[in-house]
Amino acid sequence: MPRYRVTLEYDGSPFVGWQRQENGPSVQQALETALAKFTGEAPATFGAGRTDAGVHAAGQVAHFDLARAWDPVRIREALNFHLQPDPIVVIDAAETAADFHARLSATRRRYRYRILNRRSPPALDRDRVWHVREPLDHAAMDEAARTLVGHHDFTSFRAASCQAKSPVKTLDLLEVGRDGDEILVRAAARSFLHHQVRNMVGTLALVGEGKWTRGEVERALAARDRSAAGPTAPAQGLCLLGVDY
Amino acid sequence: MPRYRVTLEYDGSPFVGWQRQENGPSVQQALETALAKFTGEAPATFGAGRTDAGVHAAGQVAHFDLARAWDPVRIREALNFHLQPDPIVVIDAAETAADFHARLSATRRRYRYRILNRRSPPALDRDRVWHVREPLDHAAMDEAARTLVGHHDFTSFRAASCQAKSPVKTLDLLEVGRDGDEILVRAAARSFLHHQVRNMVGTLALVGEGKWTRGEVERALAARDRSAAGPTAPAQGLCLLGVDY
Repeated sequence: MPRYRVTLEYDGSPFVGWQRQENGPSVQQALETALAKFTGEAPATFGAGRTDAGVHAAGQVAHFDLARAWDPVRIREALNFHLQPDPIVVIDAAETAADFHARLSATRRRYRYRILNRRSPPALDRDRVWHVREPLDHAAMDEAARTLVGHHDFTSFRAASCQAKSPVKTLDLLEVGRDGDEILVRAAARSFLHHQVRNMVGTLALVGEGKWTRGEVERALAARDRSAAGPTAPAQGLCLLGVDY
Repeated sequence: MPRYRVTLEYDGSPFVGWQRQENGPSVQQALETALAKFTGEAPATFGAGRTDAGVHAAGQVAHFDLARAWDPVRIREALNFHLQPDPIVVIDAAETAADFHARLSATRRRYRYRILNRRSPPALDRDRVWHVREPLDHAAMDEAARTLVGHHDFTSFRAASCQAKSPVKTLDLLEVGRDGDEILVRAAARSFLHHQVRNMVGTLALVGEGKWTRGEVERALAARDRSAAGPTAPAQGLCLLGVDY
């Protein structure tokens, strides 16, 4: 059975997240429904990142097996036709090795978090940013972010619902920059705990507001206790930019 | 009567455009309704650019007079409260000189046009970009754009509905660049004819596809005939970035 890999862009707003769930429409379900429509098969799909409800993707990766061989261009075009009107598109489709696994083979996941930092709420990017009215010191946030980079026990930034076996992860990148009214947080790691990026952003925002110091972020990390860190930043600011293999 | 100047951001998708019209909701009408709600007055508002239906703004400027003096911060906050749930926000409000006129005092209007240039349609920026599947040569578009910069009779790029007294305008800037899958066109001038930016973009796209040469754009300009130039690019890719005074 040939295996296929697709790269997906989606607006997470109308979905309960990537993963199929009882309580509403998921990206995975939409993809599987579209696949069934033109292949007549009902393949299971595996995604690289389990994006939560409201989280977007510019480069989610998924794989699936089909009994029949298909031209990858045909797969891309047919999926894009059948995915309408959902805000999900296949940017790329390719045949891949039989042992490729979108989730298990991934060596790096790259996320971006957008904060609109001005007095007025967003009009153009309502479902794309976290609106923070208080002026944030992005340089202080960036400095504090560096204390989280590396090999750590991230229990303090892990959702109670997290199913990972170990809270120990290696964070390759966490940096904070500013572009006009926007604060951009970039994060990269082989894998993340559930809500890890949003919990780190919520904590860094406390530093940006001047409520926390860099030292307090270090102590929160060392505490290995979720209640020691800051709040969870809202889903809509987060985007899975891409996955490396 | 004190005069106030406000800077507005809006998503143009649900509106018939800036200007009040019989056939649907306009940004101007929403602004005037919101003003009336908290001032009890019914001031006329004047906008710098008459953005069309579906055209966005990151920095539209408008002015109005009020009988009573108001703290500009109060104006911004009250307008943002009463503009909800419309996707219009006041980014800035200030008292201004009695002879300031948002439209007549403007010395430069800056627009950006976004083209998503890839095979797959947009999922994240559906109402924000023009989707062009054919690969566009942005360098050729940029070269052709330069022939339009300067003082010219822009009749070939003017909508039939245009009410400007003269088709002669000075185009200060027209440049085309690429950022990944996106082609960005930037345009600036004291003023534009109706549909001028969209007609220029539609014509430059022909150059990008290799159907037209730079020389054909020059000849289209020289023809002073709308039918000599290319089609009108769709509204949703256009954004009024800002207005200078």
